[in-house]
Amino acid sequence: MLITGATITPVAFRDPPLRNVHGVHQPYALRAIIQVRTDEGLVGLGETYGDRGVLDALAAVAPRLAGSDPFDLNALERLVAEALAGSAGPATHGLIGAPGHAKTVATVVSAFEVACWDLRGKALGRPVAELLGGRVRDAVPFSGYLFFKHAAHVPDPGYPADGWGEAMDPDGVVAQARRMVDRYGFRSLKLKGGVLPPMAEAEAIEALRAAFPEHPLRLDPNTAWTVPTSLAVARRLAGVVEYLEDPTAGIGGMAEVARRTEVPLATNMCVTQFDHLPPAVAKGAVRIVLSDHHYWGGLRASLRLAAICRTFGLGLSMHSNSHLGISLAAMTQLAAAVPELTYACDTHHPYLTEDVVRPGAFRFTDGSLAVPEGPGLGVELAEDALGELAEQYLRCGFDTRDDITPMRAVDPGWDPVMPRW
Amino acid sequence: MLITGATITPVAFRDPPLRNVHGVHQPYALRAIIQVRTDEGLVGLGETYGDRGVLDALAAVAPRLAGSDPFDLNALERLVAEALAGSAGPATHGLIGAPGHAKTVATVVSAFEVACWDLRGKALGRPVAELLGGRVRDAVPFSGYLFFKHAAHVPDPGYPADGWGEAMDPDGVVAQARRMVDRYGFRSLKLKGGVLPPMAEAEAIEALRAAFPEHPLRLDPNTAWTVPTSLAVARRLAGVVEYLEDPTAGIGGMAEVARRTEVPLATNMCVTQFDHLPPAVAKGAVRIVLSDHHYWGGLRASLRLAAICRTFGLGLSMHSNSHLGISLAAMTQLAAAVPELTYACDTHHPYLTEDVVRPGAFRFTDGSLAVPEGPGLGVELAEDALGELAEQYLRCGFDTRDDITPMRAVDPGWDPVMPRW
Repeated sequence: MLITGATITPVAFRDPPLRNVHGVHQPYALRAIIQVRTDEGLVGLGETYGDRGVLDALAAVAPRLAGSDPFDLNALERLVAEALAGSAGPATHGLIGAPGHAKTVATVVSAFEVACWDLRGKALGRPVAELLGGRVRDAVPFSGYLFFKHAAHVPDPGYPADGWGEAMDPDGVVAQARRMVDRYGFRSLKLKGGVLPPMAEAEAIEALRAAFPEHPLRLDPNTAWTVPTSLAVARRLAGVVEYLEDPTAGIGGMAEVARRTEVPLATNMCVTQFDHLPPAVAKGAVRIVLSDHHYWGGLRASLRLAAICRTFGLGLSMHSNSHLGISLAAMTQLAAAVPELTYACDTHHPYLTEDVVRPGAFRFTDGSLAVPEGPGLGVELAEDALGELAEQYLRCGFDTRDDITPMRAVDPGWDPVMPRW
Repeated sequence: MLITGATITPVAFRDPPLRNVHGVHQPYALRAIIQVRTDEGLVGLGETYGDRGVLDALAAVAPRLAGSDPFDLNALERLVAEALAGSAGPATHGLIGAPGHAKTVATVVSAFEVACWDLRGKALGRPVAELLGGRVRDAVPFSGYLFFKHAAHVPDPGYPADGWGEAMDPDGVVAQARRMVDRYGFRSLKLKGGVLPPMAEAEAIEALRAAFPEHPLRLDPNTAWTVPTSLAVARRLAGVVEYLEDPTAGIGGMAEVARRTEVPLATNMCVTQFDHLPPAVAKGAVRIVLSDHHYWGGLRASLRLAAICRTFGLGLSMHSNSHLGISLAAMTQLAAAVPELTYACDTHHPYLTEDVVRPGAFRFTDGSLAVPEGPGLGVELAEDALGELAEQYLRCGFDTRDDITPMRAVDPGWDPVMPRW
């Protein structure tokens, strides 16, 4: 089985006006859909960021894949590194930590690597989870991902509002959580912070605690806070939150916070590459790493990360950016095979109104997703939907994620200074 | 494809009177040959230690394997842990570090896990190296493994002497090395030490350096030395040896030596399980880990170890105990797929006069072994040879490795006190 070629299709899908430390989500989220074809007529699927820089890097690699063996992941890593040597600059978004060449390489490897796992699974008639070492769980728990949000985009993008309504205070967040728990059964809740002043966000967490006494709660301000602010919030929320995610920037800052609080700290910003692990371990900067196969280098790299976390006594959780069903399938297959993943995974899926996979692929039960049973990732591409979202990409008016510009449409003086508090 | 059963065959093969810190090798080395059968008629091969304690542990697991999926390595790890819970004590030899329950479990997992990889490769028609991520090299470099040795066993075991002759001084070691290099082309040389007084062993290394100016040289006294002795040898051999292997005992002792010498330290004794890695990293105890899939938990565990070594800046080499061709095939397939393995691997293979795999499986060229091309491990079991070595096991008169008793046949007052110097 040899690869004959790969197609990259940039797509845009409707995204609600979700707030974060940088500003607000654009009316469309951008993704790239990867199809890798083989001489046996199989098609392997992958999905990654749709930003211009990532698309350019994917395009530099795709033509070189012909003749490759989908089993040879070592060769894939060499091929991507060679194709991008010296050329691919920072391409990923700052909300997943500092961008840079190495992260771009890992991101591009991952996009094609997931497609190779899908091919291997399809060739063998086995779900990817079985190829990753075997299912340790039949259903993967996810957390309900809560956001401060506006009721509608500004300016009006010309499609109906998302229906989740406004949530800019504790009551709004609790209502959002109630709806999410009622609908999907989530048993953990995560609030994206860095939006309101820190004590207002702590108040939202306390309101969630009152409304959901048994749900583990997480708060993620995306490094919006100084060390003293982080410590003040940690004092207030000690015993209330399961973990605080990236309260402050950098391994040094996180370590300073960690030394002075019992609240576990998690990260998907200061530890996002393998070479961040030694200093983070040495300084005791974090207790939990949020893995994300999209930028760690793929499913194999995620297994390596899991082995390191287990060995060095770090917890493992899973990070999410706005994504479609191919990514959700890959996240679910991976999570099904990783014993170390003892925290519920994050996902933006509840906000999704459009997808490129056939409907019915996913159903949350008690906050968990049954691992797809079909071979490979277990999802099928809906070609018509792919075409529509590809057209939407061409029409959407931008080619790179930017949460600042749409925020300035709401608040012309918006300046995402960091740390904010 | 489901496992229907597993057979464990203890075997004994002729082994030369090789010396080490404990004493001298017995006239036979003991191994266990594992055959795992499936409902599709495939047989997967594994090989591990043949000591009584290991055989007992293997026997406790084998009957439970029926119905297992050879792809489900997570289930295999659970099954072995459950089967041995509370029952399996120390079963491995002290030359690979402290024995204990966890090491026994990892050893038993590995024996069956390698057979599962062989099955997967045979089912797919692919060499194991391709399933482990893809070949990064077509031939695997090995080191020429030199021993102080007697000309013949005492008492006479009733079979002809090995033909390598005596080597109990620098000249003997150089002659042994010359023959080994001439015959197999090895480009690295390793001397098993802990036998002569430390400065006599340093002299042997200097003699090797004079005779083989370009060959990287290693010396391994198996923790025979105190910290001051280790430092004295390190001073003398700085710039001469590629690394010193386990000069002294324990992570603390090794760290103390490491702090005071520029000579790289390697280990297969103080870091032999994943939970040894955090303290070794924190203390800077070693620069190179000698992996060994037999006790680290298998090929998958070895890939995890490689990822940890790369991440934390440790070098990776490969350890050997006396072994047969199934182990050599597994070592070679693994080494072929691990980019991090930049040191030549150790092997006892040159001393082998009997094997359980069909002749012709291995040929050293320029000190390297071509990766077997066939599916799975790439070796076939020779049933008649297996039967003969199984009978030899029953006749050999012992069931556990013991280098002290045969040494006392040579030197009645032998006492392997540690540290010796």
